[in-house]
Amino acid sequence: MASSSSYLSMKMYSSSYFSCGFQLGGAATSLRCHVGHPQNSIFLRNEFSTKALFTTKVNVNSSSSVVVRAAMSTDAPAKIIDGKYTAKVIREEIAAEISRMKDAIGIVPGLAVILVGDRKDSATYVRNKKKACESVGINSYEVNLPENATEEEVLKFISDFNDDPAVHGILVQLPLPSHMNEQNILNAVSIDKDVDGFHPLNIGRLAMRGREPLFVSCTPKGCIELLHRYNVEIKGKRAVVIGRSNIVGTPAALLLQREDATVSIVHSRTKNPDEITRQADIIIAAVGKPNMVRGSWIKPGAVIIDVGINPVEDVDSPRGYRLVGDVCFDEASKVASAITPVPGGVGPMTIAMLLSNTLTSAKRAHNFK
Amino acid sequence: MASSSSYLSMKMYSSSYFSCGFQLGGAATSLRCHVGHPQNSIFLRNEFSTKALFTTKVNVNSSSSVVVRAAMSTDAPAKIIDGKYTAKVIREEIAAEISRMKDAIGIVPGLAVILVGDRKDSATYVRNKKKACESVGINSYEVNLPENATEEEVLKFISDFNDDPAVHGILVQLPLPSHMNEQNILNAVSIDKDVDGFHPLNIGRLAMRGREPLFVSCTPKGCIELLHRYNVEIKGKRAVVIGRSNIVGTPAALLLQREDATVSIVHSRTKNPDEITRQADIIIAAVGKPNMVRGSWIKPGAVIIDVGINPVEDVDSPRGYRLVGDVCFDEASKVASAITPVPGGVGPMTIAMLLSNTLTSAKRAHNFK
Repeated sequence: MASSSSYLSMKMYSSSYFSCGFQLGGAATSLRCHVGHPQNSIFLRNEFSTKALFTTKVNVNSSSSVVVRAAMSTDAPAKIIDGKYTAKVIREEIAAEISRMKDAIGIVPGLAVILVGDRKDSATYVRNKKKACESVGINSYEVNLPENATEEEVLKFISDFNDDPAVHGILVQLPLPSHMNEQNILNAVSIDKDVDGFHPLNIGRLAMRGREPLFVSCTPKGCIELLHRYNVEIKGKRAVVIGRSNIVGTPAALLLQREDATVSIVHSRTKNPDEITRQADIIIAAVGKPNMVRGSWIKPGAVIIDVGINPVEDVDSPRGYRLVGDVCFDEASKVASAITPVPGGVGPMTIAMLLSNTLTSAKRAHNFK
Repeated sequence: MASSSSYLSMKMYSSSYFSCGFQLGGAATSLRCHVGHPQNSIFLRNEFSTKALFTTKVNVNSSSSVVVRAAMSTDAPAKIIDGKYTAKVIREEIAAEISRMKDAIGIVPGLAVILVGDRKDSATYVRNKKKACESVGINSYEVNLPENATEEEVLKFISDFNDDPAVHGILVQLPLPSHMNEQNILNAVSIDKDVDGFHPLNIGRLAMRGREPLFVSCTPKGCIELLHRYNVEIKGKRAVVIGRSNIVGTPAALLLQREDATVSIVHSRTKNPDEITRQADIIIAAVGKPNMVRGSWIKPGAVIIDVGINPVEDVDSPRGYRLVGDVCFDEASKVASAITPVPGGVGPMTIAMLLSNTLTSAKRAHNFK
């Protein structure tokens, strides 16, 4: 399962943050859904078959029976929202679109990634992005600078990529060495090439009716794309987003509201988060706390998108850890009508949305419809 | 009550929108809280005494007794959040601060208002802004262009004001004549002088943790200021914002979340808005529908900020109409612990916040603390 390494650090949620390593030891804890009831330990589904997507609308009314028909067989009532498969389908669509653009106007999208320093995990993520680009026909440009490079050197490369018409997206691999001002460097990326969608202007446009962001951050975009691809109705539904980060929770809430959901945001200062979450037809959990959302938090029939990818100690695993979401899958899958697994849910969607944003940028730059 | 004319059009919520006229006739309807129960007609409090502000924390837990001690006597249990008085206090504070700045560095803030065409209501609002500026010591600059002025002429004035160091805030009075592109014109205002706070970059920064907007739109800022001045605790409270406009609902929700409220946004597509609103400790209603929020929507002890200013027909009034909020005051004041009246609530705060934003801009431009 080589590809799983590419979203081990999805705990940081962003394609740019792929390198912000996960760590075992202090941060990782051995956790079960039911603490003290080892017989209820999480059954992690590491492999999902990639069969046809659901074709029937997911009805998220608690009062109605669940009408999802999934192609997968599962012993849990909740249907699996298969991010790995969906991301594959999207990559194929992107590849076809790039091929059409190349044939029509001779242009191929380009993504530039700037890597500073020699962190092994960062190098891995950059390599994975490069591989993903290649697989769909996006040209990738990579700059590797030594740990002791200056901020000015990085800014010079960004400026060059900003001016380079062959580059349609620019990613600065995070984290940067501590002697650099991350904000300065990220702000230097042209908004036209900010395929991560983190620029406040993009967030502002996302929040405003009648405005369109140039790019939507990859992970929240991936969450909504999963809901769309699985025909989950959003309009008029109650949605709860757990977590209010700039790169997942906040944009996810804004996206849901744009689609006419009634949105509540639950965060660390929320009293009775379980009570509010239990009202939701759609839950997006992006809080980075292993198994925080329990079965009792979930309204029967709700649809769950679990963004968290948290490593927890597991002596039975050859690696010594396993990955769990923010939602206790074992409990939730007995109550929800549909749920993303971890891994294999939102994780693979992030990189697919990065490719999608890069394609969008290239199409826009060349006015290709 | 001369000043009430300045917020007749608060239905449009923004200081720039003061001129977007309210209309009697088609849009205005004769409305009572209890339709068909004329004995329950709204008692409109047109005059509020301007006594001392509350000094005791408003406890918005439904289970707790209301501990607000208001200086006003009222036959309704809810205490009046007196926007007229609060705005007066704020204007005095602003005047003192401007005087201090003038003494220290010889600088006086300047607000430029561009008025195109000869709408009487627009002329009135511009005159009121000018008067408000004068009352606190802000220099006001006014440009009056004829109805048939070109977009280029307006843009030229904006450009001049952008470059003018004596001008710290620029307002374009809306609506503009139909041959002009409003978006183009508003986008031309320098973000450093966008005292209306409508720029998407300001909205984006407002939405993002760790970022600070240069300006917060006047009406939502006024709502939060009222909560602060009346010591209403926001952190950890459930807040419901009714309405998701770019200029009130959305920024109000973002402001509440910045202060650690758990926020839900109710809008036209929300099913059971009453049910969700009933969970709120704090309600901000900004939907523009007369008396939409009924007593039954309100949790006992909730604090209500009513942004709506809706004209409804009233044959008993010398003007033929009266103004009501989005909240049925008569019913709500029996359930809530504190409530803003209409008029005399949020309305006067909008122009006070415009003055405050202009002062902030001047202080920032001259690095005056």
